[in-house]
Amino acid sequence: MNIIGPTLIVSKNLVLKNINKIKSKAEKNGIRFRPHFKTHQSAEIGEWLRDLGVNCITVSSIRMAECFAKVGWTDITIAFPVNLLEIKKINKLAKTIQLNLLIESIEAARTLEEKLKHSVKVWINIDTGYHRDGIEWNKIERIIQIASYIHNAKKMHLTGILTHAGHSYKAKTRTEILAVHEDTINKMVQLQEELKLEGYNNLQISVGDTPTSSVADDFSLVDEIRPGNFVFYDLKQVQIGSCSEEEIAIRLACPVITKYDERSEILVDGGAIHLSKDFIVDEEGRTIYGYISQPLDKEFSKVKNTYVSAISQEHGTIKTNNKNFFQKINVGDIIYIIPVHACLTTNLMSKLTTLSGKEIQATCK
Amino acid sequence: MNIIGPTLIVSKNLVLKNINKIKSKAEKNGIRFRPHFKTHQSAEIGEWLRDLGVNCITVSSIRMAECFAKVGWTDITIAFPVNLLEIKKINKLAKTIQLNLLIESIEAARTLEEKLKHSVKVWINIDTGYHRDGIEWNKIERIIQIASYIHNAKKMHLTGILTHAGHSYKAKTRTEILAVHEDTINKMVQLQEELKLEGYNNLQISVGDTPTSSVADDFSLVDEIRPGNFVFYDLKQVQIGSCSEEEIAIRLACPVITKYDERSEILVDGGAIHLSKDFIVDEEGRTIYGYISQPLDKEFSKVKNTYVSAISQEHGTIKTNNKNFFQKINVGDIIYIIPVHACLTTNLMSKLTTLSGKEIQATCK
Repeated sequence: MNIIGPTLIVSKNLVLKNINKIKSKAEKNGIRFRPHFKTHQSAEIGEWLRDLGVNCITVSSIRMAECFAKVGWTDITIAFPVNLLEIKKINKLAKTIQLNLLIESIEAARTLEEKLKHSVKVWINIDTGYHRDGIEWNKIERIIQIASYIHNAKKMHLTGILTHAGHSYKAKTRTEILAVHEDTINKMVQLQEELKLEGYNNLQISVGDTPTSSVADDFSLVDEIRPGNFVFYDLKQVQIGSCSEEEIAIRLACPVITKYDERSEILVDGGAIHLSKDFIVDEEGRTIYGYISQPLDKEFSKVKNTYVSAISQEHGTIKTNNKNFFQKINVGDIIYIIPVHACLTTNLMSKLTTLSGKEIQATCK
Repeated sequence: MNIIGPTLIVSKNLVLKNINKIKSKAEKNGIRFRPHFKTHQSAEIGEWLRDLGVNCITVSSIRMAECFAKVGWTDITIAFPVNLLEIKKINKLAKTIQLNLLIESIEAARTLEEKLKHSVKVWINIDTGYHRDGIEWNKIERIIQIASYIHNAKKMHLTGILTHAGHSYKAKTRTEILAVHEDTINKMVQLQEELKLEGYNNLQISVGDTPTSSVADDFSLVDEIRPGNFVFYDLKQVQIGSCSEEEIAIRLACPVITKYDERSEILVDGGAIHLSKDFIVDEEGRTIYGYISQPLDKEFSKVKNTYVSAISQEHGTIKTNNKNFFQKINVGDIIYIIPVHACLTTNLMSKLTTLSGKEIQATCK
């Protein structure tokens, strides 16, 4: 592979391993595996999932739904509360595929029923503690009001209750992730039962961010999981406790531009328009935009005492106290950065390159 | 204009005003105005600059240089230390346009001389305090070594010394920006004189980030300025003291998805893949991903006590203590976000829409 500028490398083997891990967990629990495609946004990687038996997917926008419908996906959930301004696109899509939408307000339910031309499945979006979107799980009256409206509607079929427990991203250990998982399941099951008492039977439960899907084993009380990041994983997921560094399936390959002996820093061609500005804070309080590893076709090892310490639009600064590494690196070499946030990095790069050199378009834009 | 999803709106009037402000400053000082095109990455906005008399430009990558060479720019500086792995592309470009490169190591100078097929102009990249890239301004011996090598080279023409005083971005007032400006000019002029003593006459000085170009008036001792962000400006520039909020020429228009009465928050369709994750910290220590204003075709006013408090991949959360604003906003309305970082937002959006509804491709990808 002839790398001359920032290049996003992906290991298909690691991706397949990551997919199989979650897929077999779903199978053991006898539940639906509906992976989120926002992380890779790639028709090709979609095929890797399809080849392993996946037949329904999650996306985060109508744009992505259109993109994946075009390449043959026929059962798509847009896991973003419905944007009513996109009704024309929704109608167009609902005509040809099984479209599943999220509703979290009575206004949205009313407008949708009024303007829909084709039937859709609807999930009520529930907030189980993340407080980003959804109706708080214990606002029973409001949830019943919406359930009742949808139940009586003609073009909407009430499928179930759905949550994204994004507060799992604040975890720092597997134990904390498991606590979020347990709490989420408890709340969703309790809500499901309360709705059953009101006569809403057979409502399904959809959960499953990457941290809980990766760490928890028992999903027997839910009907589907929708993780996305797990195909690649990243440093944020390692910090949370979702995965090991060895499982991260992508690297940003960056040419070395200059070495600064006086401050043990290396400038690389690769910055915020490649990695994004997302960061983690390490145990010493340092802001980390990435770590450095061997290329993906070598055995995993992380360069010690070395990290991406600063990024601007196209510049990346690597700080190291590792004299051996610093001495060996030369201007014109390639450095492999483990990204902090795989979804944003992939969205920015728009293209991935496999270890065999095959280029994969990554963005449904 | 029919907005149904996140849309980046630009006011051509404000852009032209911003351009004229800096351009007239360059003219008053009798110096070259070489605007940085990394902020807009747009052939069309390039034409707005060309129509105002601009004939030489700055970019931050060979990719951008190729893109703007294609649309008729013939004098381009790549303000990024030369990436030697891109030598084929450099040669191709240097054949057809006046290409100006940055050098900051003797290794780069040697490799370039060996592999160049066409002549280029070369600037020595100087670090005047930002410590991201460049040779520290007072490492005279090293600078002279490189100057000497380039001076004797056949395919490189030594043009001058160049710096990006990016530490101006750490300023919090106009006074602090002016201090960075004065210090930068002093260092560059001192270096120019030391090089003159060594026989390197007529070396030019290139400076000019957006903060110093916007605030300082006296550029009489330098030869060119290269600001980029000033075409749009953003909240970061306001916080530094470079501009007023009224001068910011872009807004991310985002549909309102849901209102959460219990926590006075509004969910919009618009997140990290539209705005980037860049943020400012306000006086109360809050992380701000954007403020809210009237649309760009209305008189400027900012919505008080309201800000983008959180973003994930496609979700934006607007927090408000402004009851009047919260009451008036409805699901399906459009909210106009003033971005924190215009360059990253524009790079992500790839497309701008003018107030008259014209779509402008923004990315030379």
